[in-house]
Amino acid sequence: MKKINIFLLGYGQVGKNFFRLVQEKQDFCRRKYEHHICVSTVLNSRGGLYTASEKKGEGMFTGSALGSKLEEHPDYVSGMDFENVLEYPDLDILVDCTPSDIRTGKPSLDYTHRALNRGMHVVTASKGPLVVDFAGIRTNAEKNSVCLGMSGATAAALPTLDVALRSLAGAEILGIEGILNGTSNYVLTRMSEGMTYAQALNEAQRKGMAEPNPEQDVEGWDTAAKILIITNAVMGTSYTLEDMRVEGITNISSSLWKEAKKTGHKLKLIGRFSPQRKTQNLETRLSPIHPSHSLYGVDGAAKGITFFTDTMNTVTVTGGKSDPRGAAAALLKDVLNIYRG
Amino acid sequence: MKKINIFLLGYGQVGKNFFRLVQEKQDFCRRKYEHHICVSTVLNSRGGLYTASEKKGEGMFTGSALGSKLEEHPDYVSGMDFENVLEYPDLDILVDCTPSDIRTGKPSLDYTHRALNRGMHVVTASKGPLVVDFAGIRTNAEKNSVCLGMSGATAAALPTLDVALRSLAGAEILGIEGILNGTSNYVLTRMSEGMTYAQALNEAQRKGMAEPNPEQDVEGWDTAAKILIITNAVMGTSYTLEDMRVEGITNISSSLWKEAKKTGHKLKLIGRFSPQRKTQNLETRLSPIHPSHSLYGVDGAAKGITFFTDTMNTVTVTGGKSDPRGAAAALLKDVLNIYRG
Repeated sequence: MKKINIFLLGYGQVGKNFFRLVQEKQDFCRRKYEHHICVSTVLNSRGGLYTASEKKGEGMFTGSALGSKLEEHPDYVSGMDFENVLEYPDLDILVDCTPSDIRTGKPSLDYTHRALNRGMHVVTASKGPLVVDFAGIRTNAEKNSVCLGMSGATAAALPTLDVALRSLAGAEILGIEGILNGTSNYVLTRMSEGMTYAQALNEAQRKGMAEPNPEQDVEGWDTAAKILIITNAVMGTSYTLEDMRVEGITNISSSLWKEAKKTGHKLKLIGRFSPQRKTQNLETRLSPIHPSHSLYGVDGAAKGITFFTDTMNTVTVTGGKSDPRGAAAALLKDVLNIYRG
Repeated sequence: MKKINIFLLGYGQVGKNFFRLVQEKQDFCRRKYEHHICVSTVLNSRGGLYTASEKKGEGMFTGSALGSKLEEHPDYVSGMDFENVLEYPDLDILVDCTPSDIRTGKPSLDYTHRALNRGMHVVTASKGPLVVDFAGIRTNAEKNSVCLGMSGATAAALPTLDVALRSLAGAEILGIEGILNGTSNYVLTRMSEGMTYAQALNEAQRKGMAEPNPEQDVEGWDTAAKILIITNAVMGTSYTLEDMRVEGITNISSSLWKEAKKTGHKLKLIGRFSPQRKTQNLETRLSPIHPSHSLYGVDGAAKGITFFTDTMNTVTVTGGKSDPRGAAAALLKDVLNIYRG
């Protein structure tokens, strides 16, 4: 039985779901993977909790003891920060659930490098650092001989990286296309059914699918971040946002809708890597897709990705839970896979 | 650079394609995976070739030197058999490309166990042994601390096992449904377009998609073998064909077609694992599926699989090359993944 000590950074929706999921899956993970997974440190922006295994039995906060507010836990230490946590012994993995800026990578970029330098594996749902400094993080992880789990930042419960790196091992990836943002896909689906952009977005917000400020989703930045990370991870490239053409769904002309409808196409926001193109081979673009397209059936808040290969033809993955619990499940997957042969 | 010595058993369509693919991918595998993959032994039913690395440079037959007929190679040893090969040193992996009987496992079952006992990893496209004695092979591989690569026997270039075991790690699989046989799916697709069964099968045979004796495909046995192996590998079960209800596509009543058409369904041959059912929870069954079904768009010779999970919802994979080269690519994938962290 291998004990895995996790430092959970961030206790918002994804962090809370990750914590709960680890509690729920304790027995399953022991039985199936022979891993005892412990969240032994939790940190938010104002302080945190640290339970050493020596001090408190299994070193695991119990679900009942850790509610939705970290601050209400009796052992919460106000003012405890990242610097303090790095000094604690026995931390194997940083699970980063903090939101980060995809233009600066802050605040996670710094945390990521410091955890890697401390010899911790990093499993992250935070796109910023990977968008801003993919090459630096990859190099740093290699230098420190630790792993980087990026599923949480690359469409979460929809398998993307695992499939490209493992299921397609030995094949050359000739291109990638993905519908990678559930919110914008939902809005496009509803618009194709006759709603205006404002109506569709409003409905998505009412259903809790879209943020009050939906800019990242509808202007294509979330899709851009995901296809960028996926491409860099799969192709060994070092693209940044500056290399990309990024389009959203906020300004679709009615003639584009009419044309798509007339020719039997659907309009989809596609994150695309086309290595054969000399310029702008990485983009997020509103694209009319034909019924024969592998992602044609990906409607509503669903996501999907297609890999074009030399020896295996095209392989498409669709589905995966699109919410904080799905993101938490993707983080747990990465944690488990780090310790598997 | 890790050198991997392969013993290739069987030199039919899949075996030849595997040999050629390894030749083609030499540089790619060295560059990307730091593996030097050598086919150092090839055996067919009448004899074989063995090139020790000491004797012939890199221990690799060159593509030009090994044509479509093994017997024509100058070093071909008539009468060389499996027993002889097991005595050769430095063989890391048995790649089994022999056809086998899914009712007896012969002849591969015996080869599989002997290779495992000799400490070789086994990567196989041969379903028979896995259908007949999954539990025994799994136990034997564990006992000998070697790996078992089964992608070639579980829909080949369509990723099935990797996705379930790695991309869905930490999730519980609540059910599996797959369109796993290209031939029967092609026939059903053409029948839905108005052809008779005989016309559709005839066309599939003319196009080289269906065997002259298509029994395994159209009577559901190929689908049954695949869903059986996938289920046993993913769920840790030990089902055999006796536990299954197996249906094919040879006797579809015209009323079933009419009913499906009227209600907007497609008829598909689905391999299905439904753990919640008390009896017959593993089956191959002709099923009407609705446009909302994740496999609805899988037409013609295409294949697809859906996993139902607790924490990640449903995840569906479609595509993958359905021919001997696709099978060869799946075998190469398994070889590469055995040596990855």
